[in-house]
Formats: sequence, structure tokens, C-alpha cells
Amino acid sequence: MHYDTTYRVSYGDTDQMGVVYYGNYLEFFERARTEMLRSAGLPYAELERRGWFLMVIEAHCRYHAPAHYDDLLTFRSGVAEVSRVKIKIVTQVLRDGVLLAEGYVILGSVDRDRRIARLDPEFVDICRRFTLEEKE
Amino acid sequence: MHYDTTYRVSYGDTDQMGVVYYGNYLEFFERARTEMLRSAGLPYAELERRGWFLMVIEAHCRYHAPAHYDDLLTFRSGVAEVSRVKIKIVTQVLRDGVLLAEGYVILGSVDRDRRIARLDPEFVDICRRFTLEEKE
Amino acid sequence: MHYDTTYRVSYGDTDQMGVVYYGNYLEFFERARTEMLRSAGLPYAELERRGWFLMVIEAHCRYHAPAHYDDLLTFRSGVAEVSRVKIKIVTQVLRDGVLLAEGYVILGSVDRDRRIARLDPEFVDICRRFTLEEKE
Amino acid sequence: MHYDTTYRVSYGDTDQMGVVYYGNYLEFFERARTEMLRSAGLPYAELERRGWFLMVIEAHCRYHAPAHYDDLLTFRSGVAEVSRVKIKIVTQVLRDGVLLAEGYVILGSVDRDRRIARLDPEFVDICRRFTLEEKE
Repeated sequence: MHYDTTYRVSYGDTDQMGVVYYGNYLEFFERARTEMLRSAGLPYAELERRGWFLMVIEAHCRYHAPAHYDDLLTFRSGVAEVSRVKIKIVTQVLRDGVLLAEGYVILGSVDRDRRIARLDPEFVDICRRFTLEEKE
Repeated sequence: MHYDTTYRVSYGDTDQMGVVYYGNYLEFFERARTEMLRSAGLPYAELERRGWFLMVIEAHCRYHAPAHYDDLLTFRSGVAEVSRVKIKIVTQVLRDGVLLAEGYVILGSVDRDRRIARLDPEFVDICRRFTLEEKE
Repeated sequence: MHYDTTYRVSYGDTDQMGVVYYGNYLEFFERARTEMLRSAGLPYAELERRGWFLMVIEAHCRYHAPAHYDDLLTFRSGVAEVSRVKIKIVTQVLRDGVLLAEGYVILGSVDRDRRIARLDPEFVDICRRFTLEEKE
Repeated sequence: MHYDTTYRVSYGDTDQMGVVYYGNYLEFFERARTEMLRSAGLPYAELERRGWFLMVIEAHCRYHAPAHYDDLLTFRSGVAEVSRVKIKIVTQVLRDGVLLAEGYVILGSVDRDRRIARLDPEFVDICRRFTLEEKE
């Protein structure tokens, strides 16, 4: 099962080519995974309050077709892999069912002192509910 | 005496109208005042290490002419007013001597616990070296 | 009558002081006025398709209390003034009914060639439906 | 031969974890490749004036250690691959010689109508002057 959330493209998201600036997709991915966790009852803000932090280790995005100002985008997210200290979350950006971009983020678990720490077990359980594989 | 620093407009700074997005000027103002303080030997990062923080209370910008991708802008800054707990810094954005935008930021001094605190005296002395009034 | 829309603060919106970066409020104002126009049946994207553009002439914001990561903010917008070529839109940022920030943007009407042009009459009528005055 | 340019981290670049927000690295990469091209006498803005556009097809970043507010970063760039219609540019983000992040962007050449077009031969020659391979 994947998780879908929507987002409206702002003017500030665009660049002079008339499309969403490529760098903004990583913030889109962040919004997508945040809403996925919230939907499962464990907001990321709560995770930080408990002393667990997720640092991005790797990010990747493939751009298939541009998104434009005022587009209502769907961010589809799920977990592709999870180990004791890392998790890989895939996010697809769609408009009217068409895949515009797809990417993933690998997050590592750290404690308050930024030392590697095992992922919160409740967090892992929640993540296992959502699955999504990259299309290409 | 005012302080000048330069900045190169990135693609990400632009929007689909082909000009720098209006919201980015406030980050320009932040870059401008940071370099002004550094030039006087008191980087803002050092101020924070000493336990002094500046919170923005008010920001204002007038846009006269657009800035474009790849423009080499000059940010001209100086202090318009300073009291025991507040400082008003004016910044002008110029290209080839032409004023594109002008604005100010009013900063309030707070301590680590975000309580109002008197401005660091060394900081006030440094700020008094730089003066700039709004043109309009 | 004013118009309310909501927005979820992303991680990318915050800065190292643990609050929403002051420059991001101008993008919040843009989102707010865009949704206000859409609610009235005239999306700004449609306005641009008809050849009318709005350029920001002036922007202002007063910051009363910080917004934080994951806050669900309400953006309340309305028109404070409208002339033949300019419009002033006020936006308030609220969390649980508490005013965090308030500001305005003055927009000037231009045509495709960026020459000053009278505001689209339908647009003016729509704007008159929404009113909001600054609190302070 | 690779190309180095420097960048000062702004407050707006940081997030509440006290480090540069991961999404901002893609804008860093854009700044890096822009300066690389300028150094070779072919600014990207000039390329667009001639009717050649580069669209990002793929972007990737590995984060090794965080960058902080006010850091003076070095962006090191070079070309890893170039074909008739695509180019892969690698960028490393360093602070005092230490690698903080590394990534690449694959750009596709398009004309004014966003159709795939062969890369400008002068542009290809210039790109061949700069080489850089990913470390890992």
C-alpha cells in the first residue's frame, strides 16, 4: 500500500523556463513522506520530540515531464527498503495520473547527538505498512 | 558609510515571469547584512555563539525594476536606526548602479531563551559605523 | 468577507533558530492570494492566460510570534485597497486563532509587454468581494 | 581539470536541525555548473539567448557530513560524460578540503520548443575541458 497526498504548485516554485525548478522536488519528497507518517499516526515532529532524528544520506530524482504553476500534484510514497538504521522511501510525482518525476531518499537514524542509532521500532512497523517500488 | 557586497542570481531565484521571485529579496537582505557585519569583524555566527540572537520583527521591500537570471547584483546596506533592543537595517539592490529594489528589516535582540535582551554593546558600536537611509 | 486557506509548514521552511525563516512568509502570502482568487472562480493562472499579469510593487510583513515545523497555519486574506492599476492585499498568518504575522502586498497590473495596464474589470469585481484591514 | 567556485551558506539555507537543508544542494549544483561555464567564456544565459536550453533529466546527491550556517563552501565541478544530447556534470561540496556532499546532474539538450536537440558543439568543446569523476 502506498500513500497519496496532494500539493498545489506556487509561483515561487517555478523558474524562468516556466516549470517547477528541479531543486524543489526534494522538498516535495519531504512533504510527501511527512504526510505518509502523519497518516499512520506518527508525525515526524513527534519522532523528534522522542529524540529520534532522520538525516538524509542520499537523494535521487528522475524528471520525466515538467510540472507547471498551479498544477495540483499528487505525491505517492512508500517504503522500498528498511534496515535497522536506514530506510529508503520512494516518491512519485503525478499529475492526472501521469508520472512527472520519481525519486527516492535514503534516511539514516541518529540520536540527539547525531550518532547512528537503531530506528525506532514503532517507526519501522509503521513504515512497513507502506510499500512502493521505483518504476524505472 | 554603507557596505556593498555582490551576489549572482541563480536559476532557482527566478520565477516563470522571467524575473527574480519577489520573496527571494528577503534572503538577499539577510545575505547583505551578514556580510556587512562580517566586514566589521563581528560575524553574526559569532554573535549567536555568544548567546545573542536577532529576530526579525518587521520586513519591507519596494520593487522598482526586476532583476534577472545571472545578473550580478550589488547589495548596499547600512543602519537607519538603532535603539537598546532594536535595529533597523536598510538594504538596496542595485545592478550597474541602478536601484532595482529597496527595503528594510527591523531586528529585535533576544537571548537564548528568546526573551528580549539589550543589544550587545560591541554589536551596536559596529552597526553605528554603517549608515544608510531609504531613498523613498 | 475575508478568505481562509490552510498550509502545513515543511522542514524546508524552517531555519536553524527552529522557526519558519522570515523570507518564506512572502511565499505564504502568494499562496494565500492565489487560493482566494481561485475560490472566486478566477485562478491567477487563468488571468495570465488572458494576458494580464500582476507584478509586486511593495511587500511588507510584521512578525509577532514564530511559526514552527509541522504547524497547520491559516492564511487569512482580503483586499484593503483597489485602484485602476493597483491592488493591496492583506494577509494574516494564524495558528489556532492566534496572529503570528501580518503583512500586505501591493500588486500592479501589467500586460504581456510589462507595460502598466488597467486591472481586468472582472478581476476587480472579484477582489471587491474580499476585504481585510491590517490590525496594526 | 575541474572547476572550483565558493559559496557562503545563508541563514535561509539552514533548517531546524541546524544544518543546510538537503534540498538546497541541487541549487548549489546549479550555481556550481553555471560558474564553470562562465569561467570558460560561455555563460548559460548566453546559451539560452542562442536558443539552446538544458533540462535536468536526473539528479543525485550523497550527503556525507552536514554544512552549517556561514560556512564558506567550495563547489568543485566537472563533466563525467557527454553524448550528443546529454551531459553528466559531477559536483562535490567541500569545506576546508573535506567532502561534505557529492552528486551529479544529467542535463538534456532541448530547443526553444522543448524538443530534444543536439548539444551546441561549442558547448560540448567547453565541457570537455572540465572533468570530474564521482569518488563513490
